[in-house]
Amino acid sequence: MTIRELIQQPHVWMTAGQESATVVSSRVRLARNLAGAAFPGWAGELECYRVWRQLNGLLAELPTLRPLVATGMEELSDLERGLLFERHLISGEQAGKGRGSGVALREDESLSLMVNEEDHLRMQALLPGLSLRECWRRINAVDTELEGRVTYAFAPDWGYLTACPSNIGTGIRASVMLHLPGLTLMNELEPIMKGIQKIGLAVRGLWGEGTEANGNMLQVSNQITLGETEDQIVAHLEQIALEIVEYERSARERLLEKREAVLRDHVGRAVGILTQAHLLSSKEALDWLSGLRLGIDMELIRNLDRQVVDELFLLIQPAHLQWREGRRLKPAERDAARATLVRERLKSAMKRRPRSTNNE
Amino acid sequence: MTIRELIQQPHVWMTAGQESATVVSSRVRLARNLAGAAFPGWAGELECYRVWRQLNGLLAELPTLRPLVATGMEELSDLERGLLFERHLISGEQAGKGRGSGVALREDESLSLMVNEEDHLRMQALLPGLSLRECWRRINAVDTELEGRVTYAFAPDWGYLTACPSNIGTGIRASVMLHLPGLTLMNELEPIMKGIQKIGLAVRGLWGEGTEANGNMLQVSNQITLGETEDQIVAHLEQIALEIVEYERSARERLLEKREAVLRDHVGRAVGILTQAHLLSSKEALDWLSGLRLGIDMELIRNLDRQVVDELFLLIQPAHLQWREGRRLKPAERDAARATLVRERLKSAMKRRPRSTNNE
Repeated sequence: MTIRELIQQPHVWMTAGQESATVVSSRVRLARNLAGAAFPGWAGELECYRVWRQLNGLLAELPTLRPLVATGMEELSDLERGLLFERHLISGEQAGKGRGSGVALREDESLSLMVNEEDHLRMQALLPGLSLRECWRRINAVDTELEGRVTYAFAPDWGYLTACPSNIGTGIRASVMLHLPGLTLMNELEPIMKGIQKIGLAVRGLWGEGTEANGNMLQVSNQITLGETEDQIVAHLEQIALEIVEYERSARERLLEKREAVLRDHVGRAVGILTQAHLLSSKEALDWLSGLRLGIDMELIRNLDRQVVDELFLLIQPAHLQWREGRRLKPAERDAARATLVRERLKSAMKRRPRSTNNE
Repeated sequence: MTIRELIQQPHVWMTAGQESATVVSSRVRLARNLAGAAFPGWAGELECYRVWRQLNGLLAELPTLRPLVATGMEELSDLERGLLFERHLISGEQAGKGRGSGVALREDESLSLMVNEEDHLRMQALLPGLSLRECWRRINAVDTELEGRVTYAFAPDWGYLTACPSNIGTGIRASVMLHLPGLTLMNELEPIMKGIQKIGLAVRGLWGEGTEANGNMLQVSNQITLGETEDQIVAHLEQIALEIVEYERSARERLLEKREAVLRDHVGRAVGILTQAHLLSSKEALDWLSGLRLGIDMELIRNLDRQVVDELFLLIQPAHLQWREGRRLKPAERDAARATLVRERLKSAMKRRPRSTNNE
């Protein structure tokens, strides 16, 4: 299988289904560098290419990564890079790289590796729901296999060396993607997010650093990679995630109790707009999809599966939209194609389950 | 029949049905005062009461007004005044009056008379569609009958005398209520309205002076009452109304041709929000009802009668809403009751005509 064939399939975390309503997905990534080679930012194209060839060959041998697909970045079109980025399989930075950088994926997309992004190697495990320990177990297995075959840049006093000092030590970043519409509708999100930042965690939007919390989706991740073990970092984030889940649960309970009309209005408008609009910006679509997801989770909408909505979160993104249409779309064309896709998907999904909404 | 019984019925211009899509209604009113009595603003309560008793007795005799219902303002509750105001049968100023002022209505509500508002007598004819000449014919007949029974305040050089100099002369104000969503969506409304003001006509919102153009409804009326005959004033306004109708028709044509997605999006959102929201402010409801009305007129919505929408324009107003509920409602309760009314009316009307919208 090639990467081209792979991205024709739905992503594992799109189709995983009945996980936690609030923790959408979990992710653990490790940053590693090879001893004796300059970091990608300092290396020339030739040295980068040598590292890519070496790692590409090694990765293909690792049992934990099988079946693997891999490609040099220069082989990928802009659209294909966009698809990988929107699926959280490569970073925005990697999407801009060319010859000398590459990407390797386990076919189920649960494991993905970037070569010569900021570090020689960035490897991540991505799974649906709250599964940080399982992500860590899987990516640790890849790391252990690889460590038997290469010499990592490592200093006894510092741990793993990385291009940016913020990753030094364990090189680990663990994150959870959280869906928090209840806290948003109760106007309680901001203080909680500020509290989370105070205890040293980072809060970002749906597509990482500098992106907005569209669709009430927020990524929470560790900032500190030094002075704690990987197990401690993962356990700490898991504990915080469970606390936020509890805040969200309580917000939804109080929403139903004290602001039921606001809740039903929000969910109703989500249904009304997404099934009837003919132009939808990405931000507006995400925000109303969030309302739909909330309505399903709170059983105000009974004729729609959450999976249909979760797939749409991804399918309405620009690259996925253009890939489905088979051509480049101008922004105004995208808004029309996005609205058509959402309208048709929702109407056909709701027709399959004709029990009307409970939101009367 | 009493006024109390009368306002339990739908208004004539709500139920008139298939008139022009753009000219919703026409209105002609005359201001008259009795010779030898002070204007209401200068008269004491006793003198006002005397004028009201005299006119009340006279009006009951006029053949053109039969069957007539009449009442002193002090007999009406706040809610009843609100109902009359929202139906355009009394002014906001009259709604605030008490003993000494009164209102008389022909039972079909096509003719209404206020006693001791700003003038001793304000009488109007209100009919659906573009029917200024018929309004003028009817109110002129009332005026002629009355002139045989009282002596009006009249000066040969000035014409009919009125409390405010802006009404002096003919005392006539003719107006049309226009629905202009096409010009709004094409961003062409403002220059046209400015042009109209330049030629000496006044532009106001749905409920007269100082009100906003909610629901894309605008009232256009003559400002000048002196130096032209009533026939000239009516004919001039009719000509301007026909020109605006033509502008609106052209805007809708170009909208379909050049901005079809914007049009379908607007109409679709109107359907989606009005059938699904659980909280609607008056302004938002009016604006989306306008979208629904446009969709029906342009045959993008085929499973709904315009009459259902036109009735809702009135029924969602605060007094009508509270009258239906049989109790006072706080603003937040009104938003919920308004959304429920709109949702249920539209869903049941659309069920009666199951052909789905053409807006796919």
